[in-house]
Amino acid sequence: MRRMAYELHYWPTIQGRGEFVRLALEAAGAPYIDVARGTEAQGRGVPAMRRLQQDRSQTQPPFAPPFLKDGDIVVGQTAVILQYLAPELKLVARSERARVWTQQIQLTIADMVTEAHDTHHPIGSDLYYEDQKPEALRRARWFCGTRLPLFLQWFESIVQRNPAGPRHLVGGKLSYADLSLFQLVQGLRHAFPETTARALAKAPGVVQLHERVAALPKVKAYLQSERRIPFNEQGIFRRYPELDIG
Amino acid sequence: MRRMAYELHYWPTIQGRGEFVRLALEAAGAPYIDVARGTEAQGRGVPAMRRLQQDRSQTQPPFAPPFLKDGDIVVGQTAVILQYLAPELKLVARSERARVWTQQIQLTIADMVTEAHDTHHPIGSDLYYEDQKPEALRRARWFCGTRLPLFLQWFESIVQRNPAGPRHLVGGKLSYADLSLFQLVQGLRHAFPETTARALAKAPGVVQLHERVAALPKVKAYLQSERRIPFNEQGIFRRYPELDIG
Repeated sequence: MRRMAYELHYWPTIQGRGEFVRLALEAAGAPYIDVARGTEAQGRGVPAMRRLQQDRSQTQPPFAPPFLKDGDIVVGQTAVILQYLAPELKLVARSERARVWTQQIQLTIADMVTEAHDTHHPIGSDLYYEDQKPEALRRARWFCGTRLPLFLQWFESIVQRNPAGPRHLVGGKLSYADLSLFQLVQGLRHAFPETTARALAKAPGVVQLHERVAALPKVKAYLQSERRIPFNEQGIFRRYPELDIG
Repeated sequence: MRRMAYELHYWPTIQGRGEFVRLALEAAGAPYIDVARGTEAQGRGVPAMRRLQQDRSQTQPPFAPPFLKDGDIVVGQTAVILQYLAPELKLVARSERARVWTQQIQLTIADMVTEAHDTHHPIGSDLYYEDQKPEALRRARWFCGTRLPLFLQWFESIVQRNPAGPRHLVGGKLSYADLSLFQLVQGLRHAFPETTARALAKAPGVVQLHERVAALPKVKAYLQSERRIPFNEQGIFRRYPELDIG
């Protein structure tokens, strides 16, 4: 397919934002190396990720992981990585209008991911959850009560309004936005099971789209493989039952 | 120049995220209508913005302001609007690599804008600042002490490493990322004057880039016009002296 594998650089023990990139690469069957999950003996691992990020000869250094190395190009910011990869992975339509819309959806997913993260870290990522628990409870009340239903209703409305039908978010083909919405729903169900179930009861189009993505052979194989890192309490989506208060 | 004016839809009393779009349109001298700042008698004002956002016949409805209407295309998400406008406004280079890099910088600016906002609203935008002041003080300590210097050092490093020289962020020409960095620095200086001064003392390239953008004739004229809304305590960048604690 291509001359060389993509190199994905991301934290090796969490799904996090890197998972949106992993899913796109997996769904497309693209060759890639998950660099920081390799060993130092191979010249990989977290030190290799740090070396690239801190390399002073890089004129386009990424601010933070995830970032993608494709030959001599290094691309950071999850949504930009996806936009960059999508044409080659055939995960976006050709028309400019469809591409703009796909990216608009992606950035709205990214906004919701940030808000989901901030339920357990409203004060700062430098502190433990335990050190910001009262604040987390207050923030989660707003997220579960207002923001989560609002975002999911928006996704439902755009699925239902897709002129090509509700099988995809954009047009009649799979795009990276579909994969990212799948991952978002996975995460919300993990972190906020009751709130999410209640909101999804009013979003049947989102539920069906999620199921269709989960059933794609390459996605299904990936989810059952060891390459898929389970959710855990270091990632973005954490199951703290006290925060599921919608 | 073009057949019709762009329509920008954004809250009429704040700079907010819409300001990044206003600045690009102004710097390019592009014709635009700031819809929500018009009167209802003209068919404008906030009701016109709401009507478009809530129009059920829109198949690509924006999640939130700002959004741009260009003929029958509606584009939401600040960074996507800028990416959409940039080729016509000549605010981005032609090469794909430069475009990807410009957008990566823009999304990093957007991340910092969100973090700056969350210093005064760590718990939720549905509550007043006064109702989340202790939390805001904690969050601001992290932002001013860690995040603000970290972001500004990254901008400094990429300005200094630009192979075309430190006059711009990308290549040898003005891009929307330069305009957005200008606006970010304006906002930080307004909201966190002491912390920002200290961080900018170590970022001479960012300071000079900011000055060059401010001196561009069209930008200068805009900043002195009534079209530029002053900073205030409803926007993203608010001067609460107690939060300037870097």
